[in-house]
Amino acid sequence: MANKNAFYAQSGGVTSVINASACGVIEACRNHSDKIGKLYAGQNGIIGALQENLIDTSQESDEAVAALRHIPGGAFGSCRYKMRDIADSDEEYKRLIEVFKAHNIGYFFYNGGGDSADTCLKVSQISEEMGYPIQAIHIPKTIDNDLPLTDCSPGFGSVAKYVAVSTKEASLDIASMAASSTKVFILEVMGRHAGWIAAAGGLAAQVEGDPPHIILFPEIAFERESFIANVKKTVEEQGYCVVVASEGVTYADGGLLSGSLNKDAFGHKQLGGVAPALCSMVKNSLGYKYHYAVADYLQRAARHLASKTDVEQAYAVGRAAVEKALEGKNAIMVSIERDSGKTYNWSLGEAPLDQIANREKKMPPSFISEDGFGITQQARDYLLPLIAGEDYPPYKNGLPLHSTLQNRRVEKRCKQYTLC
Amino acid sequence: MANKNAFYAQSGGVTSVINASACGVIEACRNHSDKIGKLYAGQNGIIGALQENLIDTSQESDEAVAALRHIPGGAFGSCRYKMRDIADSDEEYKRLIEVFKAHNIGYFFYNGGGDSADTCLKVSQISEEMGYPIQAIHIPKTIDNDLPLTDCSPGFGSVAKYVAVSTKEASLDIASMAASSTKVFILEVMGRHAGWIAAAGGLAAQVEGDPPHIILFPEIAFERESFIANVKKTVEEQGYCVVVASEGVTYADGGLLSGSLNKDAFGHKQLGGVAPALCSMVKNSLGYKYHYAVADYLQRAARHLASKTDVEQAYAVGRAAVEKALEGKNAIMVSIERDSGKTYNWSLGEAPLDQIANREKKMPPSFISEDGFGITQQARDYLLPLIAGEDYPPYKNGLPLHSTLQNRRVEKRCKQYTLC
Repeated sequence: MANKNAFYAQSGGVTSVINASACGVIEACRNHSDKIGKLYAGQNGIIGALQENLIDTSQESDEAVAALRHIPGGAFGSCRYKMRDIADSDEEYKRLIEVFKAHNIGYFFYNGGGDSADTCLKVSQISEEMGYPIQAIHIPKTIDNDLPLTDCSPGFGSVAKYVAVSTKEASLDIASMAASSTKVFILEVMGRHAGWIAAAGGLAAQVEGDPPHIILFPEIAFERESFIANVKKTVEEQGYCVVVASEGVTYADGGLLSGSLNKDAFGHKQLGGVAPALCSMVKNSLGYKYHYAVADYLQRAARHLASKTDVEQAYAVGRAAVEKALEGKNAIMVSIERDSGKTYNWSLGEAPLDQIANREKKMPPSFISEDGFGITQQARDYLLPLIAGEDYPPYKNGLPLHSTLQNRRVEKRCKQYTLC
Repeated sequence: MANKNAFYAQSGGVTSVINASACGVIEACRNHSDKIGKLYAGQNGIIGALQENLIDTSQESDEAVAALRHIPGGAFGSCRYKMRDIADSDEEYKRLIEVFKAHNIGYFFYNGGGDSADTCLKVSQISEEMGYPIQAIHIPKTIDNDLPLTDCSPGFGSVAKYVAVSTKEASLDIASMAASSTKVFILEVMGRHAGWIAAAGGLAAQVEGDPPHIILFPEIAFERESFIANVKKTVEEQGYCVVVASEGVTYADGGLLSGSLNKDAFGHKQLGGVAPALCSMVKNSLGYKYHYAVADYLQRAARHLASKTDVEQAYAVGRAAVEKALEGKNAIMVSIERDSGKTYNWSLGEAPLDQIANREKKMPPSFISEDGFGITQQARDYLLPLIAGEDYPPYKNGLPLHSTLQNRRVEKRCKQYTLC
């Protein structure tokens, strides 16, 4: 019988380095062509598997695959699609197995965050139930850095670097304007429930008193009075005030500053608007001229400023997923482990998926300074190695080169399927 | 008698390359130490001259001066300070001459935009009236690219590159999410009255149909219906829609989309909020999930992504200002001239200040496509060379190195002065 084929898909919000993981998976599969047949990618994540929209990666040149390492976004399309709760119905999971069976797929590589880890685990369970063997390996990815049992998540380090560098640059701008103009600058960054990204803004401060002067974390209940008092004191002492605010900042009663109630497909609230809300408070209470930036997708797409460490880790977890599958592993996530010791060294490990799915890794309270407005040395020691190094994409005519894949479809073998 | 000293100051909104101009001025003065005495910098622009807060640049090492080339913000502080109308009172200008006289200053190098060109011209006129000779040379700087009689303004090319690259990267992000999530992404960029920066977003599209699909210029009256229809058509045809919107977008009656009425010291309206306003329209009319980013200061501080061409021009206009002063020039601005011919080549020229002050260079109508939502080939031909090349700053521990100057003050010789 022919070697089993493999399936790879990207899930959830994309990052500037998720394609580096794809590159790792594809190159590792090519290196093991004696054991693995073809590698099919799902078009738009798991939806591609459900609807049998499979992309034949063997049609891509080695050069095109290598170039994935420096292209942001998701090369095969990602998705925000919550699989139906298996307790209610296992129909969707059975459909996956049907498609995998039809295409002789024995390896399932799923590249995403916590929701995707849950899907990956269930694929492994259903395959066992149905007696069709699939090795399901989760490849970590999330800018939120909230996956448990891994020291960090690929995608986070590059966002952290973008936020730290942007904060540092914008701080120099406002510092030079403050005497006669803008006195408060607020940068709104991503991070729904955990302040990892906001904390990274703190790296811009290299000497005591350096901006950012205030960081607002989702972990700390927002109090208008202490925030305004802190802004006032900072402007009076330093001449200006730089604030990094997480989109997830909430009042003690759980109310979001942004006040938005839109929800995405996973039921997560779609946030935005924290920075303008904070600026209004500053203007109304203190009268200072302000500016604000909302980094939004720019922060997670900024491959031009990716962390070299992050790119290397993203690539490595992709490769390792394939290698672990070939070692017979199943229902695991590839993890990144930090060696103890003063110098930063990392290696790859693995973690069982049933301990990862649907659990969020919170930022340790010890990372937040006592006043709740800054980061501690412990946070700096954790974060700094993750933004280390630069890994510039090639440029042509002033713009990064983003070659595109052919993305040729595999012929369908199953009946049509409509998403419920 | 000792050689005349020189004065240099930075004015208006800073850019990621204004310090490269400062570097050019300082290095050129050092090269001509046989003719020019000391170079004093104004702390916080012209306010530093009025209040006799002068910084002695001779105290800085050659290394510190060279490093200015890659540090964003304004190294000596900038200002938004509108000098009093000379028709009402020439008191402020006379104070400037008093300070310059006290410190034997014979060269006035002023680095800014249109308002600063006006100040520079008046300094030259008053010096003549008062019989104290000052050679006043304007060094162009503005991200808005609206200075006349120069092919482009230093600072613009780097913002253009940032906006083009960021648009390209974020477009790849949304393209991979659109099937099941975000369908519309809006990037708000600077540009009060002229759409130069928004137009630069159009460079992200390298092939017909590439994003951005819609550019909103301040030059084109905004019509809600045609905008919504265009977004709808784009999403239906492409699956998603990327919009680059200038902060200065207005309705036909002159009303700003952002609706803000705050004004800065020059009486300019302080804008912001176009992107959320557009997103609300999209959500209400079409129901699409959206994301938006507001680049704000990030775009003009992003030295990490500066255009090499822009850095070189910023440095060159600084050097040339000194050289032209030594040639005996007065009341001129150093200009950048584009050679005719297919390959981009530039050289430096000069333009009389009385033809520059208080005039804005508008974007030619021929740069905007017929439907009002895009740029033409003529715009691309103009813009592309300005974003060419990369000029990365040095990094240490994952962050750009931003050494600081000592900024030692010169002893005061005049009586105290209070700004009116």
